[in-house]
Amino acid sequence: MSETTAASFGAATHLVCRACGAHATLGADYSCWECFGPLEVAYEFGTVTREQIQAGPLSLWRYAPLLPVPANVAETRTLSPGMTRLQPADNLAKALGITGKLWVKDDSGNPTHSFKDRVVAVAQTAGIQLGFKTLACASTGNLAQAVAAAAARAGQRSVVLVPSNLESHKIQATAAYNGYVIGIDGNYDDVNRLCSELIGEEVSADWGFVNVNLRPYYAEGSKTVGYEIAEQLGWRLPDQVVIPVASGSLLTKIDKGWREFTSLGLVEEHPYRVFGAQATGCNPVSTAFADGQDVIRPVKPNTIAKSLAIGNPADGPYALDAVRRTNGAIGDVTDAEVVEGIRLLAETEGIFAETAGGVTVAVTRKLLAQGLLDPTAETVIVNTGEGLKTLDAVSTGDGFTATIAPSVDSVSLVIASGK
Amino acid sequence: MSETTAASFGAATHLVCRACGAHATLGADYSCWECFGPLEVAYEFGTVTREQIQAGPLSLWRYAPLLPVPANVAETRTLSPGMTRLQPADNLAKALGITGKLWVKDDSGNPTHSFKDRVVAVAQTAGIQLGFKTLACASTGNLAQAVAAAAARAGQRSVVLVPSNLESHKIQATAAYNGYVIGIDGNYDDVNRLCSELIGEEVSADWGFVNVNLRPYYAEGSKTVGYEIAEQLGWRLPDQVVIPVASGSLLTKIDKGWREFTSLGLVEEHPYRVFGAQATGCNPVSTAFADGQDVIRPVKPNTIAKSLAIGNPADGPYALDAVRRTNGAIGDVTDAEVVEGIRLLAETEGIFAETAGGVTVAVTRKLLAQGLLDPTAETVIVNTGEGLKTLDAVSTGDGFTATIAPSVDSVSLVIASGK
Repeated sequence: MSETTAASFGAATHLVCRACGAHATLGADYSCWECFGPLEVAYEFGTVTREQIQAGPLSLWRYAPLLPVPANVAETRTLSPGMTRLQPADNLAKALGITGKLWVKDDSGNPTHSFKDRVVAVAQTAGIQLGFKTLACASTGNLAQAVAAAAARAGQRSVVLVPSNLESHKIQATAAYNGYVIGIDGNYDDVNRLCSELIGEEVSADWGFVNVNLRPYYAEGSKTVGYEIAEQLGWRLPDQVVIPVASGSLLTKIDKGWREFTSLGLVEEHPYRVFGAQATGCNPVSTAFADGQDVIRPVKPNTIAKSLAIGNPADGPYALDAVRRTNGAIGDVTDAEVVEGIRLLAETEGIFAETAGGVTVAVTRKLLAQGLLDPTAETVIVNTGEGLKTLDAVSTGDGFTATIAPSVDSVSLVIASGK
Repeated sequence: MSETTAASFGAATHLVCRACGAHATLGADYSCWECFGPLEVAYEFGTVTREQIQAGPLSLWRYAPLLPVPANVAETRTLSPGMTRLQPADNLAKALGITGKLWVKDDSGNPTHSFKDRVVAVAQTAGIQLGFKTLACASTGNLAQAVAAAAARAGQRSVVLVPSNLESHKIQATAAYNGYVIGIDGNYDDVNRLCSELIGEEVSADWGFVNVNLRPYYAEGSKTVGYEIAEQLGWRLPDQVVIPVASGSLLTKIDKGWREFTSLGLVEEHPYRVFGAQATGCNPVSTAFADGQDVIRPVKPNTIAKSLAIGNPADGPYALDAVRRTNGAIGDVTDAEVVEGIRLLAETEGIFAETAGGVTVAVTRKLLAQGLLDPTAETVIVNTGEGLKTLDAVSTGDGFTATIAPSVDSVSLVIASGK
């Protein structure tokens, strides 16, 4: 099941191998037939103006002319994610010693409260163009809920494969949409391998796996985080950005989005630096950066930042390229620092992030201390998800400052004791 | 601590008693000095145009000229809630037998994922105008998190008082912002009474309780749900709306917002019908409606829809007025029907609502069956919060369709068995 004649992918023209440059037609292919390198969507953009984008819907579909989707995509049944808040973060800047302007791009405002709604929306649309009837994925949490919700809205079946030891509340939230939620006895690598084995099997002949056979389209969804930051800043690029790194795809695509906006004349050319954030318990890209290596040595993840726990990140080398090309850096932080990062963002800005957001804040602090981030420059940090989904990471005791009788005197005593 | 000379409340001119019509100055008063009736904000609106609103920020502050807030409010440090999605809901319409257009106004897209961010933003702003340094509330969940987050962002102290037997995850999420989270040994009525007793006490002299002494301002925030529905429909009103009823404030304020939009010429006059939704385990307004009474007889709540569990709803009589004036109705549904409502919305539209959203969907179905809602009319239903916060309501077993070994054959067996 590859391309169909009626399929429309907008301005996308073909797939191209990021390793050897070989071309492939737009279909459900994800690795190069020549060298097994990863395939990426290539385009021939027409004229795209700010006015055209601004006249579009208040979702990522305002950027439809820059995505591998049909022109009428906003009228189709997707969750319409995107256009999340870009919040000025003056309190956090002060706490971090940043004197330049600081912003938080808060993707917890998406329909299922993570940036995964963006990539799923693009993959789902491409999958429908390619004739897939079922939306599927391998996931450890955020992606599972995003796929189950998007499939429900489109009237598709969903099949989500996850490790059977996943946190119960992520399972229950995903199960609410009534798709298949299949627990696999094994770790995430086992689940991922199984999904690759399912490609081409009879049972899964009409399954579009968003992060396997639809991966080239899926990855393009992340460009919209970069587009929105630029548009929300008033059609310009910031000096620095700090982005969490799991597969490395989000980082490379924000960079790609900004290069596209620049070449299309939607923003003025502006030198920017791209920084990556990992947890020390899963830091293969950070380690390669520190060691000056081009090759990523896989690790066995052991961190509370489960949404970043990819030990063998597919786009790691490309993330390294983007960081080095822009004079950025990649840092990693301990789980204790991750929790401090979550708390700092919540206390200063009222944004309750998942563990990945804690990683980003904590790495920002570390890179500042190391003199790698410029405290006087305009900086954007990206929060990819919602604290309600990783509540256990910050829970301590019963959460109460105090438990008292219902009397004014008792309240007075609590306040007098301080926090 | 009442009005200050420097305070600005925009077009708001005074407070007016909804019972006897007496006037009061704009201050931290919430009940009439003559008859103890509830006070409401009154305005003298200038000219407000669609163009002026559309040029405003993508938050509830685009409606600042219609709220008791200063003109520069969008530049102050609030969470900037609002402008949540109005999703077309064709699948749900089909499931419910609605042939007219159906929309879901999904307020789970707010910063802390409930409509409470709106009312807190307005109360917080008024409280700062009135000189309060601390943001406080009595709450059973959504309001607690909204207050703690908003206070953190503004650099204010927060004091949240909740029943000590509240669900642990609501406490932990609220505690993340590092405000005071005080558990009270007692039920919500005890907490509410304690907050009233704290007004004027030394310990709480600078505390603005959003839902007590700032209540007139707080309630105005709910108008923005109505404003947004009208704007998002293309500056027009729907035929019918179904709104969950706790205190009754949201329902009365959506109605107020639509009357204001009509009288200001922002929408054409259009007859609309307002419907209310309660859980049978806390149905004082629904009961009064069914019995043809004007007076609400308090009940002792017993329902899984805890965010609607107000046994003695302050705005109940006004909600009855709005429903009767517009030829609407109020219905109530059992907890089992609430769970079915949550599942139906998730399965058909990919929107995972809290229990209050389940109440609204289930009551919509019931009112259709009773012939009270018109299935051919254009209908909007309001989802006020997020399913992740009331996950226990829909959890069954471990959530898995099946747990299997990582093999293609095992997957094939699960799919062959069906759901």
